[in-house]
Amino acid sequence: MLQISRRGQAMPASPIRKLVPYAEAAKRKGIKVYHLNIGQPDIETPKMVLDAVRHSDFKVLEYSHSAGNESYRRKLVSYYKSVGIDVDHNQIIVTTGGSEAIQFGFMACLDAGDEVIIPEPFYANYNGFAVAAGVTVVPVTSYIENGFALPPVAEIEKKITARTKAIVICNPNNPTGYLYSNEEMQQLKQLILKYNLYLFSDEAYREFCYEGHQVSAMHLQGVDDNVIIMDTISKRYSACGGRIGAFITKNKMLLDAVMKFAQARLSPPSFAQIAGEAAVDLPADYFDQTKAEYKSRRDLIVKRLNSMDGVFCPNPGGAFYAIARLPIDDADLFCQWLLESFSHNSHTVMLAPATGFYGTPGLGKKEVRLAYVLNLDDINGAMDCLEAALKAYPRKTN
Amino acid sequence: MLQISRRGQAMPASPIRKLVPYAEAAKRKGIKVYHLNIGQPDIETPKMVLDAVRHSDFKVLEYSHSAGNESYRRKLVSYYKSVGIDVDHNQIIVTTGGSEAIQFGFMACLDAGDEVIIPEPFYANYNGFAVAAGVTVVPVTSYIENGFALPPVAEIEKKITARTKAIVICNPNNPTGYLYSNEEMQQLKQLILKYNLYLFSDEAYREFCYEGHQVSAMHLQGVDDNVIIMDTISKRYSACGGRIGAFITKNKMLLDAVMKFAQARLSPPSFAQIAGEAAVDLPADYFDQTKAEYKSRRDLIVKRLNSMDGVFCPNPGGAFYAIARLPIDDADLFCQWLLESFSHNSHTVMLAPATGFYGTPGLGKKEVRLAYVLNLDDINGAMDCLEAALKAYPRKTN
Repeated sequence: MLQISRRGQAMPASPIRKLVPYAEAAKRKGIKVYHLNIGQPDIETPKMVLDAVRHSDFKVLEYSHSAGNESYRRKLVSYYKSVGIDVDHNQIIVTTGGSEAIQFGFMACLDAGDEVIIPEPFYANYNGFAVAAGVTVVPVTSYIENGFALPPVAEIEKKITARTKAIVICNPNNPTGYLYSNEEMQQLKQLILKYNLYLFSDEAYREFCYEGHQVSAMHLQGVDDNVIIMDTISKRYSACGGRIGAFITKNKMLLDAVMKFAQARLSPPSFAQIAGEAAVDLPADYFDQTKAEYKSRRDLIVKRLNSMDGVFCPNPGGAFYAIARLPIDDADLFCQWLLESFSHNSHTVMLAPATGFYGTPGLGKKEVRLAYVLNLDDINGAMDCLEAALKAYPRKTN
Repeated sequence: MLQISRRGQAMPASPIRKLVPYAEAAKRKGIKVYHLNIGQPDIETPKMVLDAVRHSDFKVLEYSHSAGNESYRRKLVSYYKSVGIDVDHNQIIVTTGGSEAIQFGFMACLDAGDEVIIPEPFYANYNGFAVAAGVTVVPVTSYIENGFALPPVAEIEKKITARTKAIVICNPNNPTGYLYSNEEMQQLKQLILKYNLYLFSDEAYREFCYEGHQVSAMHLQGVDDNVIIMDTISKRYSACGGRIGAFITKNKMLLDAVMKFAQARLSPPSFAQIAGEAAVDLPADYFDQTKAEYKSRRDLIVKRLNSMDGVFCPNPGGAFYAIARLPIDDADLFCQWLLESFSHNSHTVMLAPATGFYGTPGLGKKEVRLAYVLNLDDINGAMDCLEAALKAYPRKTN
């Protein structure tokens, strides 16, 4: 019989998208669903970014350079300079979304059977890319009680084996919103130096820090060969559909290896490279405005959550996600129940069960991730639903 | 020491792009280089296709569905119907170029150590995707003497082992231009049925057939679960930079597996999906015009090649490539010499050595691939250069 490969079988279904059929059924019943389940912002893509594509006048939609248009990479150098990252355009490989940057890193640095350590809860698709690459994800648990801070270095060290090749962080973090402190980043630096590991730093949410500033992995001194930044324009400019990201390292040998993977897939998308290039010229206050908007959303959602009986939500320092602990038996059942069996004035809310973000089975059963990607009115509407739902839910716990 | 993974080391550098530094050096010396080395057509992307993107008026560049916009997939159903392929929109997963469709197929159908049989010479990037997936490419040689027809089935059968999971064809073929006959397709059908194999059919050049029509793998009866089409809009509409392709199968279990890989990378590029959707509405005579243009280029290049002393070029039935055998010692050295040491009236020509398209070491040493993606004047100019070069080349053979 024709078979699916073992990795095809092992590949995890998206934990965020598996509730979609229940949401669709709710909508068919006339219920409005507030989508706090995915990181698709409602913020408009800056008009000048879209206009750059709309006003383009080329005649042939050609392949770009496999590393991305040189003009775009040169422009990106000035963007990175503005956030204190000093890179050359030859140290940037433009990718098809941040997703491809992660895949390139896994493929070029790790072999099947190698291990990568990731603080959990973590961005669920790291699991998928690990399965595709045959790599084993070794989670180190961070805890909601201390706001999902970096686990103690001793806990991370315990997980290191001869097969460990890399540590992956996402900073500020998806799904926790945690912003790593300078002290934590220095601890990671000592660790990767001591054990000679790669540090993959997913910095998709760099611009959205509400308590202090991001310390980029590229701000660390003396670990140039170890550090890789996985980046994307998706969240920075609310341009998720562009599928433009970047793989950045100063490690020449690694750049050469990744370029071979980049050449095999020919080039990143041409239209959105035009958008990305234009975005670098946005006025200096662009991020101030979007950051202020996200901060007010965060402040509202965290306040609303913590005012509910039995709910605890640490205040996230960045990104646009929060994880809350709810007084429920099982987040997967609860999130399904919200869509299938509950409504409040014909509204309900779609959340992501946190279980999908943990590598350790059984963790996150009372936790949900909320993406504060909707405007304040909608967040209030969604929180009204959640508050009413927690009162009505038949399988409440403490 | 930090290391590159074994697969990162094994990943082949692009055989087409490795001569690029020599071409750049030639240009710096003021030499005009005719690029017959890559499949980047000079044909303009249809204006209405680009205009669809330019006239789009959305406010947020959102993720699309992981399988691609439903409106686009529904539109594609009518396109495929027009070429005699009967598929449902749920049997189409829109991919980031044909490249990603190939990767999805390898990842979901084959495990590390599994084998895939491919008639050689073949599209060189199959090698890269195989290395990324840990899959072994088993070549079966086709020969220039009979125009690179499908090798005898007995030769293919000899290569089948317990690890063989799939046969890959590209039809019409890149790099040979060979168009598989209905008889050959029926032979392949019997083979995949007998040995229970997947048939991956790369049909990127479907529209460009000059001697008869393409028999799609989806025209074969009774092998619905075995057949996968890897498709792309890159060549069809001269839209290589869009990075929009498609993975198509009627095998439900395989679609479910591939969807997990598609969800992990979130979505294909949004802008070019708009372009692809608009392209389905091009007037019926669009392909007549482009096909006529390519046919006249083919006729010219084949005639010019065969009129040169010691050169043999079979007449390709489709695509826009031809492989020619030249009276030279070594195609890699010759192609480098063309760029480094030769010019004719300050012009030279860049070709792709055929060695990079063979899986068997040592084959193709006297062969080059020519992409007839330039207009007739440029093809004549390029052939003038090649003709002069073959007279001047110091290491000629018979």
